[in-house]
Amino acid sequence: MTAKPQYLTGDIAAINEFIDQFDVFLLDCDGVLWSGDHVFEGIPETIKLLQSKGKRTVFVTNNSTKSREEYLKKFTKLNIPSTVEDIFGSAYSASIYISRILQLPPGKSKVFVIGEIGIEKELDSENVPHIGGTDPELRRDITPADFEGLANGSLLDPEVGVVLAGLDFHFNYLKMAHGFHYLKRGAKFLATNIDSTLPMHHDFFLGAGSSMAPLVTAWGQPPLALGKPSQAMLDAVEGKFQLDRSRTCMIGDRLNTDIKFGVDGKLGGTLHVQTGVDKKEAWEKEDAIAVPRFYVEKLSDLLLAKE
Amino acid sequence: MTAKPQYLTGDIAAINEFIDQFDVFLLDCDGVLWSGDHVFEGIPETIKLLQSKGKRTVFVTNNSTKSREEYLKKFTKLNIPSTVEDIFGSAYSASIYISRILQLPPGKSKVFVIGEIGIEKELDSENVPHIGGTDPELRRDITPADFEGLANGSLLDPEVGVVLAGLDFHFNYLKMAHGFHYLKRGAKFLATNIDSTLPMHHDFFLGAGSSMAPLVTAWGQPPLALGKPSQAMLDAVEGKFQLDRSRTCMIGDRLNTDIKFGVDGKLGGTLHVQTGVDKKEAWEKEDAIAVPRFYVEKLSDLLLAKE
Repeated sequence: MTAKPQYLTGDIAAINEFIDQFDVFLLDCDGVLWSGDHVFEGIPETIKLLQSKGKRTVFVTNNSTKSREEYLKKFTKLNIPSTVEDIFGSAYSASIYISRILQLPPGKSKVFVIGEIGIEKELDSENVPHIGGTDPELRRDITPADFEGLANGSLLDPEVGVVLAGLDFHFNYLKMAHGFHYLKRGAKFLATNIDSTLPMHHDFFLGAGSSMAPLVTAWGQPPLALGKPSQAMLDAVEGKFQLDRSRTCMIGDRLNTDIKFGVDGKLGGTLHVQTGVDKKEAWEKEDAIAVPRFYVEKLSDLLLAKE
Repeated sequence: MTAKPQYLTGDIAAINEFIDQFDVFLLDCDGVLWSGDHVFEGIPETIKLLQSKGKRTVFVTNNSTKSREEYLKKFTKLNIPSTVEDIFGSAYSASIYISRILQLPPGKSKVFVIGEIGIEKELDSENVPHIGGTDPELRRDITPADFEGLANGSLLDPEVGVVLAGLDFHFNYLKMAHGFHYLKRGAKFLATNIDSTLPMHHDFFLGAGSSMAPLVTAWGQPPLALGKPSQAMLDAVEGKFQLDRSRTCMIGDRLNTDIKFGVDGKLGGTLHVQTGVDKKEAWEKEDAIAVPRFYVEKLSDLLLAKE
């Protein structure tokens, strides 16, 4: 039996007690800090408040379209203080997994990317060779010659040992057909993350799990997903900071990624916000995939601690 | 307990007996007659043989990329004798379902198409208004203005009451995002068919079920599929020919579409060929989705009956 989550909104004493019991806050971005390019009101002030109280704020996002460097630019533009070291994207997590954990046999060390530039930059940062991705040659309609060259293998790079898929705003039949034929020839199937939807403009669009769905459906097997709730991502964060998990709190909007990530990782706390994909009704259900320890309406409700 | 399928290849007596017990043969196309644009050896002769024995040959295909008229051109080019009346595609089946069975409320009568020109032509033949499909305006990258216009609804046609998806070689984020937002606004979700793979060049590529998978994953619910094995398609065939089901045989390569279609429709027989997606190992398994009554290596094995 899981204890009922504690509601913090409007309760100064509870908020102060909540903040005091943690040294590190891991924060999801989409649906917590912003929706697409729209930052939620009070977010920069809330992050500054936590930092002013000596807390470390680490941003842990499943969105793989940006590299850590690009995320830093977005944070700076939105007036949210951070450093590259305090940003963990699923593209970075996947790149670390490929370069440091996965033992690719010689001659099979290349990654075929289905995704945006964020994945390519993080693979570069780990010196992992890759093809596909943002290559303009793959951003076009499939032709009869492509069908033939994929079927007979002449269009395939024999050194590809991994297909890595993430959110791709440019997915098309040609890229997916390449990925499918690499998988049929034995490549491992990895994903940065498999979130089905993406919060943007106070609405939802297709997330990584949807953008790679043609490949998953054709192949008939899901990829190994390396973003939240995969503990590979928490291991990467912990490896960098030597976290005390009992003094760490995960803040997020999704039960199946953020809250499950914190619960599975045995963190001291999890905080659920109502500004993204899942609302409290999701964890009130008996078969909820994960239940948070705390919840607020919106992250900036923590600003009460200021007063 | 299902009886073991009878093997006909090389057995003249069994082949003659098989042919004699049916008046109508329903034939799948991809994987039975051809793989992509490669017609299998002996197919034209086999169809002519059946016709010369007074049998009706009806082509029942889940491939929605071509209209019946376009299929006829392909048949003629490949020297397979047929008429438009003897061709049933899933685009035609879906169009009949929308125009004659589905009662769309006034002001919600338009169809948003994700698919190729075959679907558009068959909707035209039933006078169903449609948008999307092959519209070149949707064959491009999604822009920030698209995200905003889809979220606020300004880019959506309020008269769309159905999203109809089929095999689309030009699927992209923009089309899928349109489909997703129509579904969120209450449109019904239909599919011509949901085959996950497509036989081509003696290999497999992404089928309709894979090409529409981004929408299915984002929406979280599958569409109502109107191709095989949906009995809506058999009802359409029967409505045209007043078939005697006990004297009708379905010929195909897939258990979950072709053979199940014939079994569910209580046809007199089903014949499984080994030239497409499923091999005999698939129905030898205990949990096979459907088991044929007869099987051959390839359709042209029936040519023995000539002798």
